[in-house]
Amino acid sequence: MKHILVIGAGRSASSLIQYLLNQAGPQNWKVTVGDVSADLVEMKTQGHPASRAIVFDVHDKAQRETEIQAADIVISMLPASMHIEVARDCVRFRKHLVTASYVSKEIAELDQAAKKAGIILLNEIGLDPGIDHMSAMQVIDRVHKDGGQLVSFRSYCGGLVAPEYNDNPWGYKFSWNPRNVILAGQGTAQFIENGSYKYIPYNRLFLQTEKVEVKDHGTFEAYANRDSLSYRKPYGLNKIPTMFRGTLRMPGYCKAWNTFVKLGWTDDTFTIVDSENLTYRDLMEAFLPGKGDVKERLRAFMGIDMDTAILEKLEWLGLFSERRISLVNASPAVILQALLEEKWKLKAEDKDMIVMQHEFEYHPAADTDDEPAGGEAPCYATSVKTKKITSSLVVKGENSVYTAMAQTVGLPVAIAAGLILNEKIQARGVLIPTIKEIYEPVLNELEHFGIRFVEESFMC
Amino acid sequence: MKHILVIGAGRSASSLIQYLLNQAGPQNWKVTVGDVSADLVEMKTQGHPASRAIVFDVHDKAQRETEIQAADIVISMLPASMHIEVARDCVRFRKHLVTASYVSKEIAELDQAAKKAGIILLNEIGLDPGIDHMSAMQVIDRVHKDGGQLVSFRSYCGGLVAPEYNDNPWGYKFSWNPRNVILAGQGTAQFIENGSYKYIPYNRLFLQTEKVEVKDHGTFEAYANRDSLSYRKPYGLNKIPTMFRGTLRMPGYCKAWNTFVKLGWTDDTFTIVDSENLTYRDLMEAFLPGKGDVKERLRAFMGIDMDTAILEKLEWLGLFSERRISLVNASPAVILQALLEEKWKLKAEDKDMIVMQHEFEYHPAADTDDEPAGGEAPCYATSVKTKKITSSLVVKGENSVYTAMAQTVGLPVAIAAGLILNEKIQARGVLIPTIKEIYEPVLNELEHFGIRFVEESFMC
Repeated sequence: MKHILVIGAGRSASSLIQYLLNQAGPQNWKVTVGDVSADLVEMKTQGHPASRAIVFDVHDKAQRETEIQAADIVISMLPASMHIEVARDCVRFRKHLVTASYVSKEIAELDQAAKKAGIILLNEIGLDPGIDHMSAMQVIDRVHKDGGQLVSFRSYCGGLVAPEYNDNPWGYKFSWNPRNVILAGQGTAQFIENGSYKYIPYNRLFLQTEKVEVKDHGTFEAYANRDSLSYRKPYGLNKIPTMFRGTLRMPGYCKAWNTFVKLGWTDDTFTIVDSENLTYRDLMEAFLPGKGDVKERLRAFMGIDMDTAILEKLEWLGLFSERRISLVNASPAVILQALLEEKWKLKAEDKDMIVMQHEFEYHPAADTDDEPAGGEAPCYATSVKTKKITSSLVVKGENSVYTAMAQTVGLPVAIAAGLILNEKIQARGVLIPTIKEIYEPVLNELEHFGIRFVEESFMC
Repeated sequence: MKHILVIGAGRSASSLIQYLLNQAGPQNWKVTVGDVSADLVEMKTQGHPASRAIVFDVHDKAQRETEIQAADIVISMLPASMHIEVARDCVRFRKHLVTASYVSKEIAELDQAAKKAGIILLNEIGLDPGIDHMSAMQVIDRVHKDGGQLVSFRSYCGGLVAPEYNDNPWGYKFSWNPRNVILAGQGTAQFIENGSYKYIPYNRLFLQTEKVEVKDHGTFEAYANRDSLSYRKPYGLNKIPTMFRGTLRMPGYCKAWNTFVKLGWTDDTFTIVDSENLTYRDLMEAFLPGKGDVKERLRAFMGIDMDTAILEKLEWLGLFSERRISLVNASPAVILQALLEEKWKLKAEDKDMIVMQHEFEYHPAADTDDEPAGGEAPCYATSVKTKKITSSLVVKGENSVYTAMAQTVGLPVAIAAGLILNEKIQARGVLIPTIKEIYEPVLNELEHFGIRFVEESFMC
């Protein structure tokens, strides 16, 4: 009997734990789930006979060491900053580790030690990062194998509410960390386009958006992610002339969100004086120059960047209302987050939706002349002979617990853990799932859960 | 013989050291000037018989203790973050300390200990902070003494180039820390206007400017300082409905600077890939969306916020040129700063100019009915009986070493040090010059150096 230790039973761990428990019987697994919240572990394990639910504090060294030593593999779904102690113990006790988080500098430094210990520290195997790496590398490796040369790679991902469960003018509800949504994009986005580096600072990030068509799912809009450049190296695309990653939203969201950016509502660096006694209207007034009717002033202030659809979105949030903010010493970002957490809450029966789309353009090998099936398509590159592949994924959740987000983040982690336990993955050290040995079986297994990319090919 | 220790002989210390050495004979002072740069101390003391020039490292504990013990008073012109060790030694060895820097949290915590040691730790006695406090409090105390009630206080200050020495379309040259000019305004500016708190985030700070008329010196423009609110308490104006502090620039500067903000040139949070090989034009291109002629794209991108005067300013800086940036791993802010330090350098014979203006509005005591001399003036307050006082200072430098900046920052420090040595200031503990015992004699002495406020009174 193999023993799996899952640390962290929060939002993203629901489908992961469900998968492991469903497999526990046939695979002869025992699954220990630990979290600081006893309620959470009880709720997620539901007394399953193969499960052991424990209250677990990662900072309790003795408990951490005991539990890790008792496991064959550890899955950490803790916040990224908390993985390192777990990872060090995994190296020490020669236990494999799987996480859905970005490889931190500290984790990367464990590579040699992990190899020496004969274990894998597999990271970035959730949705984004995770499924994005795997599905992109599957196409990239195939193009390269066929002698093609990639000239453009654009990749988009968004965690949204399924359109049929949308009941608000923003077309958005939270399926992951709200704070990250509020602070998204602060800094400067960087990418490369036709061989030139491009930079978009926060002040215009939500105005400089792209339209993205996803087959059978209509049009979305995308704003640029912070750093598209760092993906070139792990994908083996150091010389690619165009590399862009973006976040998807429903059309109209970005232009409306820009109002918050321009007014100052997303600032988290200072606190609003007397915030507990102000109303939302008061704070709106405080961000607007001049005097008079607040909506008229907003319209005048935003100028060409304002329209009725935006005003409706702001009104729906109650930003012109006399309702009190009732938060002490709060930053604008904290005030906005509290309001949006209420307004953009996924209801129990709501379904969320994950949309991911990759767009590859490449020069095929000189000796290939087979026409792709999909006909012609508009391409970014303008070279004589360019082919294009789009690869898209749309996943809808079951409800507000077993969300598409929880499935797409948690299932790849769980599947990878199973593959490692069954010795289907031989690679060792600190890794991300850009290698075929990992991405192929994980993507295959994901298809059984409806997480399946749809591919189309075109001539440019 | 009294012994003065001056630590730091940089730009702001020139006039300070000159004043102390000129007074050294009649006052029987010995002046030790210490700096990490031997050249700098030699240059600033010029072998004056009352001077002792030493190479001084504030981090050398033994030297610091020895020199502080040998002094009767210490003047620290170091960067603000370096004062604290000096201040602690001053408390320990019971020596007075004068600085031109803001009171840090650490310095503030020394208040009781300083009082117990019978010493004064006098801070914020340069230009801004310093002369602004003193000149404002002189009027505020007078208005309050006469039974008046202040309803509006707006205060502006700018360190500029004297118009007759201006030879560039920006009307600006550096007379102080260039980095602070590049990063100015990042965050959110806060002030209060007619009883309402107002916030201006960085993305529109340089568009939401005010015109400021200074008698005999024409029109300037002002952008809001980061925090006007924190001045209410030290000035005893906790209930004032309008309190605004702004930075002065020549007309047109702010709208042009907004181009840098909007494009992303002032970002200091990331480095530009391959920055050493790019030209200024390349980087301009990298910040602009689309393709085609860079100036046309800039014009389209900036829209209503662009005009020929702005384009001329950018062109004058060489931002469309094929000249290489030649800085490795540089942030946009670092790249811009290096360029501006070259272009906005004060030449040896150039004169800088300090402009400061306070605008007070108040309700006079009920029993006063004397009309002010200056006639009527436009006022911000709209109450029935309101009077207005403007108090303005314009100082021009002698040259690029004995600048107006060096005079206005350094002379108040030097004068205050003399007053303390001569026991004209009895207050003890951590202080700023908002009390009459300090501001009155300092402002009087400053008048001998042409640093004199001109006051006008109006009926609103």
